[in-house]
Amino acid sequence: MPLASILVVATLLTGAVRPPASVREYRQNNEAKILAEFTNLLAIPNVASDRANIRRNAEAIVEMMQRRGLSPRLLEASDPAAPPAVYGEWTVPGAERTLVFYAHYDGQPADPAEWTGSTPWAPVWRSGSLAAGAPVVVPTPGEPVDPEWRIYARSASDDKAGVMAILTAVDALHALGRKPTASVKFFFEGEEEAGSPHLADILSRNRDLLQSDAWIVCDGPVHQSGRKQVVFGVRGDVNVDVTVYGATRPLHSGHYGNWAPNPAMLLARLLTSMKDETGRVTIAGWYDDVVPLSPLERRSLAEAPKVDDALRAELGIARSEGGSKDLLELINLPSLNVNGIRSADVGDAARNVIPTTATSTLDLRLVKGIDRERQVARLVEHVRRQGYHVIDRAPTAEERRAHPLVATIVQRGGGYNASRTPMDLPVSRSVVEAVQSVSNEAVVRMPTLGGSLPLVIFEESIRATTIVVPIANYDNNQHAENENLRLQNLWDGIEIMAAIMTMHWRE
Amino acid sequence: MPLASILVVATLLTGAVRPPASVREYRQNNEAKILAEFTNLLAIPNVASDRANIRRNAEAIVEMMQRRGLSPRLLEASDPAAPPAVYGEWTVPGAERTLVFYAHYDGQPADPAEWTGSTPWAPVWRSGSLAAGAPVVVPTPGEPVDPEWRIYARSASDDKAGVMAILTAVDALHALGRKPTASVKFFFEGEEEAGSPHLADILSRNRDLLQSDAWIVCDGPVHQSGRKQVVFGVRGDVNVDVTVYGATRPLHSGHYGNWAPNPAMLLARLLTSMKDETGRVTIAGWYDDVVPLSPLERRSLAEAPKVDDALRAELGIARSEGGSKDLLELINLPSLNVNGIRSADVGDAARNVIPTTATSTLDLRLVKGIDRERQVARLVEHVRRQGYHVIDRAPTAEERRAHPLVATIVQRGGGYNASRTPMDLPVSRSVVEAVQSVSNEAVVRMPTLGGSLPLVIFEESIRATTIVVPIANYDNNQHAENENLRLQNLWDGIEIMAAIMTMHWRE
Repeated sequence: MPLASILVVATLLTGAVRPPASVREYRQNNEAKILAEFTNLLAIPNVASDRANIRRNAEAIVEMMQRRGLSPRLLEASDPAAPPAVYGEWTVPGAERTLVFYAHYDGQPADPAEWTGSTPWAPVWRSGSLAAGAPVVVPTPGEPVDPEWRIYARSASDDKAGVMAILTAVDALHALGRKPTASVKFFFEGEEEAGSPHLADILSRNRDLLQSDAWIVCDGPVHQSGRKQVVFGVRGDVNVDVTVYGATRPLHSGHYGNWAPNPAMLLARLLTSMKDETGRVTIAGWYDDVVPLSPLERRSLAEAPKVDDALRAELGIARSEGGSKDLLELINLPSLNVNGIRSADVGDAARNVIPTTATSTLDLRLVKGIDRERQVARLVEHVRRQGYHVIDRAPTAEERRAHPLVATIVQRGGGYNASRTPMDLPVSRSVVEAVQSVSNEAVVRMPTLGGSLPLVIFEESIRATTIVVPIANYDNNQHAENENLRLQNLWDGIEIMAAIMTMHWRE
Repeated sequence: MPLASILVVATLLTGAVRPPASVREYRQNNEAKILAEFTNLLAIPNVASDRANIRRNAEAIVEMMQRRGLSPRLLEASDPAAPPAVYGEWTVPGAERTLVFYAHYDGQPADPAEWTGSTPWAPVWRSGSLAAGAPVVVPTPGEPVDPEWRIYARSASDDKAGVMAILTAVDALHALGRKPTASVKFFFEGEEEAGSPHLADILSRNRDLLQSDAWIVCDGPVHQSGRKQVVFGVRGDVNVDVTVYGATRPLHSGHYGNWAPNPAMLLARLLTSMKDETGRVTIAGWYDDVVPLSPLERRSLAEAPKVDDALRAELGIARSEGGSKDLLELINLPSLNVNGIRSADVGDAARNVIPTTATSTLDLRLVKGIDRERQVARLVEHVRRQGYHVIDRAPTAEERRAHPLVATIVQRGGGYNASRTPMDLPVSRSVVEAVQSVSNEAVVRMPTLGGSLPLVIFEESIRATTIVVPIANYDNNQHAENENLRLQNLWDGIEIMAAIMTMHWRE
C-alpha cells in the first residue's frame, strides 16, 4: 500500500480528518502517544557508567528513529565499551544546508533515597512543582494533560526532553507533509554527564558524516523569566587546588601562636590579594585576552530581561558583586571563585592548634580568547609575586627551611576552554528568527551561559559551529533529586525544534 | 616502740647503716620502692568522667598520704558525684609560713589503639624515647634503673609525676630527719584535664583550710633546653566562632560566580584585616590593657636560653612571625590565632559552588590585665567596622536582605583570664633560689607560659598566689598517645620539691 494511503488510513483511525495545519495541532492530537513514548524512555536507567542500561537506552532510541525512517546507526568510540552515540538522518534532496540536532540520553547519577514520593526511573506526574507542594497525579486516559503538570524523573529535562522534542518535531513535520529546509542529522550522546570523555573520538571518527552548517544543541533551561532563549556560547572552566604550609606538625596555639606562621591566615591573605572589594580579580592579566563582545552581543545583553533584583531577593543577597555590572555582564567576563577552604577544624571539633596546612579549591571560568593553561599560569605568577615559592607537589624539608612562604598549586584534571559562536552569522540569525517565530515574547539572545559545557570539543575536533537552544523549565532541579520537566516546556520545545528544522536560511 | 627505734630497725633492715645525707641519697637507696609505688598508681585508669576509677585513685592517694602520716582527707565538691580533691598536711609547729603543693591525679582520655607497644594504664619501660626507636625493657630486680629510661603510661608525666615527686620528697625529708621550713599542705585535684569545673567550689568551701603564702603547682614540662624552670604565670584563653554568610542556597559557580557574594572570600578578607604581615594584631585596642613586664621579668626573659633557631629548624619554619621579637617576648603579648577554617569542600570533594557560609574558630590568648569579655568585644567591634552586621545567632531573612555583610560571632563556653605572680615577691625569689640550689645550670624564670591553665581560679576564689614548678621532660607527649616520663626527671623532681619544702624564706 502506498505510504500516502497508509497515512490517510492512520489519520482516519486516529480520528483526525485532515492533516494537522500546524505543529501545535499535531501535538495536540497526539499527546497521549508522545507522553507514552517519553515515559517509556525515561523508565530506562541511564547513568553512563551503567553500560548495560546505557545500551538499552541506545537501542530504544535506535528503534524510535527507525520508526521515523531516520536510518539510525550507532557511532561507537574506539573503546567499544564506551556508550555509543545514536545517529540518524533525514536527507533532503536538493537541500544545500545541513543541521545536526544534538541531545544526550545519559543522566546524572541519582540516589532514590533523596527523591520525594517517587524514584528516579519510575516517572510520576505532579500537578505542578513539588517545591510548591503539588501532589502526585495520574493522567486520565483520553483527557489532555494540563500543561502545568510536570513529569518527575531523572533526565526528564536533562536531556531526554531534548531527544523527545527533536524526534517529535520530525513526527510533526511528517504529519504536516513538510520537509526541512536543510538536511537534518541527529546525534544523541550517551556520556555528557560523565564529561564526554569519548566525544572528540567519536566526532573525529565520523568527521565526514557529521559535516554541517551548525549543531543545534538542545540541552539546558530556558531563561529565568520564562522567555525562550538561544545561547551562543558557554564559559570554559578549570579548577585549581592551592595549599599553603606552616610547621611540620600541629603546634599548640598557646605555646606557639603568633610566633609560628599560621597557614590558615596566610591563605586568607593570599586569597584576599586576588580580588578587590567589588569582586574584580586583581591578578595581573586576568582580563587581557578577553575577546570583546560585538555590538550585536552587547545589544542582546541590553535587551535581555533584567533578573538581578528578583534573584537577589530570592537568594537573600542584599548586594551582589561587580560594582555596577549586572549578572549578564559579569558572566561575560572571566571569573575566579573560591569553591571551598579547609584548614584544621572549627566549632566543636576545633582544637587550640596552629594548623599545618590550609587548602582552597578555586574555580576559574574562562571566556573566549582565554586559554586555560595561560590563565592558570597567571594565577601561579600572582602567587609568586606575593612571595611564595610555588611548586606542584608537597615541599621538601629543604624548601621549608629556605622559603618562608610555600604553596602547592595543582591544576585539576578536566577543564576546557570557552566556546562562542558569533551571533551575526547568517545561521545564527536564522536560528533566532526561527525560535522567535514560535514565541510570543522576544527571544533572549545570550552571548554565553555563565556555566560551562564542552562545546569547544565540537569546534576543535570537527570545526563545528554550535548553537544552544534550551527548552527545559528553569526550576527543573537538573542534576539533583526531583528533577522534572514542565509539560508546556516540552510542547514549546517541539515547536522550537520543528521551526529550526524548517527555518528560512538567511545569507 | 618509739618511732626513732622503728626507724633505726627499718634502716638496719634496708641495709643502710646511717640516715641518708641528702635527698638524692635517699632516693638512690629507695628506687625500687619508689618505682613500685609509682607503677601501682599509674595502673589505675584516671579519666575524670570515670567516677568509679577516679574514686579508686583518690583512695589510693589517701593511703599513700596515710603511710606518710599526713592526716589525709577528701575534699568533696557540692556535687557529691564530682571527683574529690585529696588533702593532706604536715604541720610544723612554730612555722610562720604555709605552702600548698598542688598536683592532679586525673588524666586526658586515651585511646589504647593509638598507643604503640603498650596501653595507657599498663605501664611499661623503654630504654629511651619511643620516637627514637627505644624498645620496651624490663628492670632487673636489685639493679638500679638507668635514668634515661622512660615509663610509658597515661599521666606518667601529667600529672602523677607531680603526685609522686611531692610525696617522695616528704619521704626523703622524713628519712633525713628534716622538717620543712613552712607548714606544708597537699591538694591533689581529680578534674584538671576536664577543665576543673568544681575547683572554685572546692576551694571556696575550704577557704580557711587552704590559706597559704603560696601554692606550688607541680605540673608541666621543664624548659626545652632541659634546664629547670619556674613559671610565674599563664596566659588566659577564650575561643570565638565567626561565621559569614552568602546566599541562602549553594549556587552554581558558573552561573553566579563573581555576582553572588562568596562567604569564603569574605571571611578571608575579614581575617586578613585582623593582623598585619608581621603577625601583629591590628584590632583596635588589642594590646591596650597589657600590664607591662617588670624590669625583673624582662631580665628573666633576656637570661632565658634562646630556643628560636633550634625550634625553627626542628619545625621546618624558615621565618617566624613577630618581626624582631622572639618566642618569649611574643608569648607575653595577647594573641589571635586561627584554629581552623571551613567553607564547603576542597580537592576531590570540591564542587563548583558558591558556599553558603564560611566559619573560622579563633583562639585568643590573654595576658594579665586583659579581661576576656572585653577582648572579645574588641574583636566584635572590629568586625563591625569592616561593615558587618554582627549577631550571635543565624541571620533572619530580613537581616540578609538589609545587610550586605552579616557575621555570627559566638564566644565559646569556658575560657578564663591570665594569671601572673610577680617574680619579685619574697616567696617568688625564695622558690627560685630553692630550685636553683638543686640545679647545675641557671634556672629559667618564665613570667608566663604561652599556654593556659586556670590558675586564675585560685586567685579569684581564695586569693591564692600560684607558682608553677614543672618537672616533666619536654617531649613527654602529654595529652597524646605514648605519654611518658623520663626517669631522671622524676629524680630531679623529688629534689626540687624537697628543696622548696625546706627553702629559706626571704623577707
